[in-house]
Amino acid sequence: MSKVVTFGEVLMRLSPSDSKMLRQSREMEFFFGGTEMNVGASLAIMGCETRHITNVSDCFIGESAIATMKSYGIDTQFVNRTEHPIGLYFLEVGSAMRASRISYNRLNGSFANIKPEQVDWEKALEGAEYFHWTGISPGISEGAYETLKQGLQLANSKGIEITADPAYRSNLWKYGKEGFTVLKELISYSTIFIGGVNEINEILGTSFGYDKDSFIQAAETLMKEIPSIKKVFDKTRIGVTASNQATQGRALVNGQYFETESLEVNPVVDRIGTGDAFAAGLIYGLINFDDEKALKFANAACAIKHTILGDVNLSSANDILEVMNGNSGGRIKR
Amino acid sequence: MSKVVTFGEVLMRLSPSDSKMLRQSREMEFFFGGTEMNVGASLAIMGCETRHITNVSDCFIGESAIATMKSYGIDTQFVNRTEHPIGLYFLEVGSAMRASRISYNRLNGSFANIKPEQVDWEKALEGAEYFHWTGISPGISEGAYETLKQGLQLANSKGIEITADPAYRSNLWKYGKEGFTVLKELISYSTIFIGGVNEINEILGTSFGYDKDSFIQAAETLMKEIPSIKKVFDKTRIGVTASNQATQGRALVNGQYFETESLEVNPVVDRIGTGDAFAAGLIYGLINFDDEKALKFANAACAIKHTILGDVNLSSANDILEVMNGNSGGRIKR
Amino acid sequence: MSKVVTFGEVLMRLSPSDSKMLRQSREMEFFFGGTEMNVGASLAIMGCETRHITNVSDCFIGESAIATMKSYGIDTQFVNRTEHPIGLYFLEVGSAMRASRISYNRLNGSFANIKPEQVDWEKALEGAEYFHWTGISPGISEGAYETLKQGLQLANSKGIEITADPAYRSNLWKYGKEGFTVLKELISYSTIFIGGVNEINEILGTSFGYDKDSFIQAAETLMKEIPSIKKVFDKTRIGVTASNQATQGRALVNGQYFETESLEVNPVVDRIGTGDAFAAGLIYGLINFDDEKALKFANAACAIKHTILGDVNLSSANDILEVMNGNSGGRIKR
Amino acid sequence: MSKVVTFGEVLMRLSPSDSKMLRQSREMEFFFGGTEMNVGASLAIMGCETRHITNVSDCFIGESAIATMKSYGIDTQFVNRTEHPIGLYFLEVGSAMRASRISYNRLNGSFANIKPEQVDWEKALEGAEYFHWTGISPGISEGAYETLKQGLQLANSKGIEITADPAYRSNLWKYGKEGFTVLKELISYSTIFIGGVNEINEILGTSFGYDKDSFIQAAETLMKEIPSIKKVFDKTRIGVTASNQATQGRALVNGQYFETESLEVNPVVDRIGTGDAFAAGLIYGLINFDDEKALKFANAACAIKHTILGDVNLSSANDILEVMNGNSGGRIKR
Amino acid sequence: MSKVVTFGEVLMRLSPSDSKMLRQSREMEFFFGGTEMNVGASLAIMGCETRHITNVSDCFIGESAIATMKSYGIDTQFVNRTEHPIGLYFLEVGSAMRASRISYNRLNGSFANIKPEQVDWEKALEGAEYFHWTGISPGISEGAYETLKQGLQLANSKGIEITADPAYRSNLWKYGKEGFTVLKELISYSTIFIGGVNEINEILGTSFGYDKDSFIQAAETLMKEIPSIKKVFDKTRIGVTASNQATQGRALVNGQYFETESLEVNPVVDRIGTGDAFAAGLIYGLINFDDEKALKFANAACAIKHTILGDVNLSSANDILEVMNGNSGGRIKR
Amino acid sequence: MSKVVTFGEVLMRLSPSDSKMLRQSREMEFFFGGTEMNVGASLAIMGCETRHITNVSDCFIGESAIATMKSYGIDTQFVNRTEHPIGLYFLEVGSAMRASRISYNRLNGSFANIKPEQVDWEKALEGAEYFHWTGISPGISEGAYETLKQGLQLANSKGIEITADPAYRSNLWKYGKEGFTVLKELISYSTIFIGGVNEINEILGTSFGYDKDSFIQAAETLMKEIPSIKKVFDKTRIGVTASNQATQGRALVNGQYFETESLEVNPVVDRIGTGDAFAAGLIYGLINFDDEKALKFANAACAIKHTILGDVNLSSANDILEVMNGNSGGRIKR
Repeated sequence: MSKVVTFGEVLMRLSPSDSKMLRQSREMEFFFGGTEMNVGASLAIMGCETRHITNVSDCFIGESAIATMKSYGIDTQFVNRTEHPIGLYFLEVGSAMRASRISYNRLNGSFANIKPEQVDWEKALEGAEYFHWTGISPGISEGAYETLKQGLQLANSKGIEITADPAYRSNLWKYGKEGFTVLKELISYSTIFIGGVNEINEILGTSFGYDKDSFIQAAETLMKEIPSIKKVFDKTRIGVTASNQATQGRALVNGQYFETESLEVNPVVDRIGTGDAFAAGLIYGLINFDDEKALKFANAACAIKHTILGDVNLSSANDILEVMNGNSGGRIKR
Repeated sequence: MSKVVTFGEVLMRLSPSDSKMLRQSREMEFFFGGTEMNVGASLAIMGCETRHITNVSDCFIGESAIATMKSYGIDTQFVNRTEHPIGLYFLEVGSAMRASRISYNRLNGSFANIKPEQVDWEKALEGAEYFHWTGISPGISEGAYETLKQGLQLANSKGIEITADPAYRSNLWKYGKEGFTVLKELISYSTIFIGGVNEINEILGTSFGYDKDSFIQAAETLMKEIPSIKKVFDKTRIGVTASNQATQGRALVNGQYFETESLEVNPVVDRIGTGDAFAAGLIYGLINFDDEKALKFANAACAIKHTILGDVNLSSANDILEVMNGNSGGRIKR
Repeated sequence: MSKVVTFGEVLMRLSPSDSKMLRQSREMEFFFGGTEMNVGASLAIMGCETRHITNVSDCFIGESAIATMKSYGIDTQFVNRTEHPIGLYFLEVGSAMRASRISYNRLNGSFANIKPEQVDWEKALEGAEYFHWTGISPGISEGAYETLKQGLQLANSKGIEITADPAYRSNLWKYGKEGFTVLKELISYSTIFIGGVNEINEILGTSFGYDKDSFIQAAETLMKEIPSIKKVFDKTRIGVTASNQATQGRALVNGQYFETESLEVNPVVDRIGTGDAFAAGLIYGLINFDDEKALKFANAACAIKHTILGDVNLSSANDILEVMNGNSGGRIKR
Repeated sequence: MSKVVTFGEVLMRLSPSDSKMLRQSREMEFFFGGTEMNVGASLAIMGCETRHITNVSDCFIGESAIATMKSYGIDTQFVNRTEHPIGLYFLEVGSAMRASRISYNRLNGSFANIKPEQVDWEKALEGAEYFHWTGISPGISEGAYETLKQGLQLANSKGIEITADPAYRSNLWKYGKEGFTVLKELISYSTIFIGGVNEINEILGTSFGYDKDSFIQAAETLMKEIPSIKKVFDKTRIGVTASNQATQGRALVNGQYFETESLEVNPVVDRIGTGDAFAAGLIYGLINFDDEKALKFANAACAIKHTILGDVNLSSANDILEVMNGNSGGRIKR
Repeated sequence: MSKVVTFGEVLMRLSPSDSKMLRQSREMEFFFGGTEMNVGASLAIMGCETRHITNVSDCFIGESAIATMKSYGIDTQFVNRTEHPIGLYFLEVGSAMRASRISYNRLNGSFANIKPEQVDWEKALEGAEYFHWTGISPGISEGAYETLKQGLQLANSKGIEITADPAYRSNLWKYGKEGFTVLKELISYSTIFIGGVNEINEILGTSFGYDKDSFIQAAETLMKEIPSIKKVFDKTRIGVTASNQATQGRALVNGQYFETESLEVNPVVDRIGTGDAFAAGLIYGLINFDDEKALKFANAACAIKHTILGDVNLSSANDILEVMNGNSGGRIKR
Repeated sequence: MSKVVTFGEVLMRLSPSDSKMLRQSREMEFFFGGTEMNVGASLAIMGCETRHITNVSDCFIGESAIATMKSYGIDTQFVNRTEHPIGLYFLEVGSAMRASRISYNRLNGSFANIKPEQVDWEKALEGAEYFHWTGISPGISEGAYETLKQGLQLANSKGIEITADPAYRSNLWKYGKEGFTVLKELISYSTIFIGGVNEINEILGTSFGYDKDSFIQAAETLMKEIPSIKKVFDKTRIGVTASNQATQGRALVNGQYFETESLEVNPVVDRIGTGDAFAAGLIYGLINFDDEKALKFANAACAIKHTILGDVNLSSANDILEVMNGNSGGRIKR
């Protein structure tokens, strides 16, 4: 199986259970997540060899984060331990018309304090066929940005396929760099863009609309402006309420547009990590299928993730294929 | 901020979790509620100064009830401690076509044994701008009726705005008084009526229908019969199943009718206290907005409460305004 | 009240709570179930005298299984204790498009090791008016098959009404006997068939379709081939997703066809044991009502079971009658 | 096996788990208990036929209480259902030097409202060999007193062995009767006294000391004053802290004194119901062994109950015999 | 009652329940604590008017922290909300020979970012009779140090009694200041020293021993070096294992030495906050009793806190008096 | 680090939480354990490379077992998946004088059905320096015996150090082989014996006593009878109650006897796997220390495991060294 390398923060997520609000809870469930690690975990569960590069704390929390990654089958030898606390976020899960709320504590954690010299990229990328990154990492700190850039440059020079999920977040980028400029720079090392009109508009400063033709124009413009990008894959989400969501994939590859059917999920168990499930499904699909089937697989992966608690898509490739093939879940598998 | 005073029983609610039936449970979640306290709590959370007047037990249960009220920001200095047990109710939460079931234990508790001399109404109403009561209290015991009547008379004489939620319950009124007569008497001290055709028909012995015109006629008849009432606000509930509900507000003020759109909630997390959320939203709205916006705010408050576990609406005014402005909850607030 | 006797395995069911997947859980809820015991339990809760015949382990697990049966009011004096472990199954509950998964551990348990000489059928059937069995039991082991056959022969000779739920499962029948042949043999001792086109096609090797006329033809063919069967009752399930199901009953009795309306359940709390709830509702209905009302009662019992956690329908006859009479659950019973 | 009949209130107990205080909890575990039912339950678990006579509520709480009694094997056909709520108590479990706290809600419940005409004593005592009562029942209400007295008179006239546990509680006896007078009256129908110097001093107004000789004198005085009493059995408790207790039995039968060794329990899991475990062990012992062995068995039963959560001793007779024979629990039984 | 003002960080504590290690848990209980707030909370529960001054986050976590403080009765009007995350710590509770482990995340939180201009000390100290601080606060950040110093200077100038708990922690003091120098400076504004030989040796650079005479010499030396200090109160802890602890108080006031008996706690439920319980007990005692009784009360408060989960001593003054008077907890309070 | 290979069954353990009895529980915690895997897991956590060889089920339970092993860092590439269910056991945890109870379900599971051809021993033992086995495996089934024997023969021929824990269990050995004969045969391939007088007496049919001299004689006799054994290490357990245990190590190596001090654990959190913790500690010690220090380390590992829930010792080598060096746990590590 192909080797995929991911780089990014591992966060502890803390949520009151059963849709309770924090103020009426006495305990929280916790999970380890982080957008890039979620991608690696899903791929590892589907049988790909994956490696995650990050910093975690040198206390018992970091130990647990590593044990969790290992349990998915992720290679953790490039997980560095430091004295800074692990990043974390609190999630209060909404319901129906009550929106979910997230509060972060990550800007001074072990990953935010990462330094380029802490990663031996040469060794870490050995044998890699795919390298996946998101725009979260360079938004956290200058050190994370510099570290990632070194990795991207090396990966690019080695001809590794690089998947970029821009994931611009306005509550990051507090260390002085301008987000869109940085993202545009880093995307120029990448080969596959996972994002749509919103992301392209943000990065290029354009204002494309949301219909099919606008998407095609946006993707073409992106590939013209950043010629390293050869393929654009996107999922659009239709959020009816916090409990009811639908997702649909579309893509432009070699000037050819294709899209998937829309998959509705009701009730939603967990919205977090559904984009990461899409990215993992896409990478799995690109490795194993053609581009169009990869998009369908990614969309099915995204949909089924909505039914799974936590940040990581725990589904096997077979589970996802069943959803992709239209099995709506109304049976019991004995 | 305005000061609102509420009077009524505080009950411990006990429910098996996760829609379990009692006979298959070994533990129950508990909450402190009570229709009038729920109103005060919601107002306190939204930033109003509120005070609740009641009796609770002098044991550790009463202590917890007071700590809970304090946590909402309610002023508890007029909460009296007595040797009788706190009232309570068991709630078995239904699902889909299985109805929820409630069993009460309140008729000999600390509130049922309240006596007029236990409340110093003069001090308790100091600075009050609103006084809220419901028809539950006079239905519990003669003492509760007498105590409430003294408060209403004083509040009325001081020109305090008095909101009356008649809330007739046939499983109360066991101490000898006739419910509708008493309610009519007490409503005649009040200025704002929170109820609709059902309640008016019960109190006046009329038989108005449920359409818009009937509501207008009913409200006009009520205001003619009980001229202290200047405004009538109502919510109608459409209960599809135990898991799916919709709510809509309507009102008649100065001969003018207005109504809100219907808000659907699916899935319902908790139906208890949704009427109290409406009343609290209404009082907040009357203090801060005009009558029509107050009704819309009240309906939004009622809807969002269906997504919150427990008896009390824990939403901030901003949360409610977002729902009122049409935000359906399909995003995550980071 | 009539006495109903049931025979079959009692299994411990183990499920992660809250729709979690097993690999992300640290604890599981457990329940005691088993298709025939579920039928007896539901009947006992509705007030019928029932007796269950089985083997359980002689350790503290078997003790708990018996205590659970007693709590429903089942007569357990013909529950035998042996050194083999109790059978069990793991259930990972699905959600929306994620299917539920079951893994069994039953083929060498205390019931699989049952021997005909362990049941004193003469005493066990004393006073019985109904005897209920399913095709699960003879699929487990030769001993279970032989033991059941002895019971059926005696019950048949005594003129006891015998309800047969064929319940063919391809993951059983590993001990050498051919499933359909055995089922056909055992059904020939029975008087009432609980099953539909699928089951008839399997047993008779026919290929009837699913429309009303095909059902009638299939049922007529069955009654011609196995003349002991006088009535055929079936429920058809429409599974939209794991969280949304509908159920409808149909029957052929004395050449007369009747069917019920379709009842939709959303959200589904638990799908396990819904067929058993149908069977118990049917037997209760046959004892207390006419055939058509029995079918309606059975369908309502099946529907409400979808809202109850665990394997057993814990509803009272009144609860079921309310659903049958169209009460959709949108109120609170105080 | 002998038939034992018990009479008394069934209470729901509600406790925060894990030694939490109520004010820091959101949920409570619940159990059904009640001193006399606890005795019947323990005897039923040990294999005696037992029947419990009481009133419970006609709601789903009463239903659960009955299901729990049935799960122990208690015959519940003389459990009457009424509209009053079931009695209950809250228990905050202490630890080390922090004392446990109990708060009751029982004085207006379904048992407190029992009336003599609700029990058909003639049928209820049919075949009984032992009748067990405690001083809790007549302390609750006049109705409970009158009902019990009728039962005692009939049992006495039938020559049934009557075990009396006086259990005087100063927080009862609020309905007008004087506790010690009533207890003395009711003990005069009984044959076996389960109590010691404290109880005798209370009932007779004496002031015996706690040493062996004083116990003998007290017991002799009791048997002189109330000649129906033929045997006196007592356990003395040495409570070091809430987590560490020791228990020792002593008795006077036919002028002969005997005592057991002291059994220490550390840590204590649950102190509630340990006296009832003693009484059940004693009755079991009197039926199956001689008086001295009965006392040892009772003391062992009392000790092991300290290690079991809830109100009821769930131990089998074999478990108790092992403790009686000096097995301290330091092994695992495989 | 006297008004006590406290200043310091409020932390969320997160612990796996039931002595589990973090890596084997999926959920954690949480509590809000913080050494100075713990003192205020205990005093508020005992009936003192208290006010806490701090910064918390402006998200839903900060909201919950405030609700928790309010539930104790603490005046929270000087709690400021900021955009930085609330500080927190993870606690893995040990057992027997396995030590408890703590990991902090506090050095960039809302309190660490406090600025002197965020506290209106003039208003905040209005009516204060006691001001309590610890050495944790100045160890967190320069801003916290400066803010505290301003408060101490004002309190000192107003003649408020100032209790200082030096609480030197080597894992703080990372912002450039030298801990002992700062502590010495701040203690020089204080009047009562809560600490013993260890703390004095650290601050003064002395090396006194642990026996009674050394304690007296150390305390005398401290009062000579820092003449504002008029009284020294200390508790010594004897930690046998993580599950078994003993505590004893000693003091030097006006040249007079006194000490309490040693109180053993077995098992220990929670060690966190026991020193804060001592400080709160001491302040309560100084307000209500003489110095010697205050020390005894403080030691009893410290002991009973070991039996209470969480950071805060939830005991009433009466509960503590009972322990002080030798009641070891071996009874149930009904 | 050295590579250690282990072979044996992986069992799912199911236990009611909080010392509850099964019949009063509705949920159970689960853990994956198995005596040999426990040894490998502890070694992996301490930093050794370990590999476990076994069969697990091909369903989601087996998947979870593998994920758990991976989380410890165990190499699972020689874990085979089969259609048989995973073995499991139920554990009811005792307390004080109430003994723990275990009930197994393992004799027809995936490991019991292992066949020699399912393990490629040549590859599996590649690079191994230690091979650990116990007498549980050959007691389960003929297939397990044959498979193990092949592994032992190969390991022996390769000069791998082989640690044998005889662990005779009378409730195994049901497939026809005589336990002691088999054990003696398999020990003759081994080099290190982990066991004491009991085990030697069982295997050799001798009757040595328990004092030091008898231990020496027994160990010498064993080494004479089975000359492949060069070292004998034993721990003796003193079980006071289920909640209080002490453990002490002794050994005979090259005719030299040494022993450790006794370590008392009170309270005991979990007794399961303490022997495996000893074995893992011993192997770690033999790799890293001399024989005497290895014994001390093993005894400390055994002791600290009593404080950790589940089957596996989750302690790091440093944690164990601290216990070994006399740190009794009475502090908090910050």
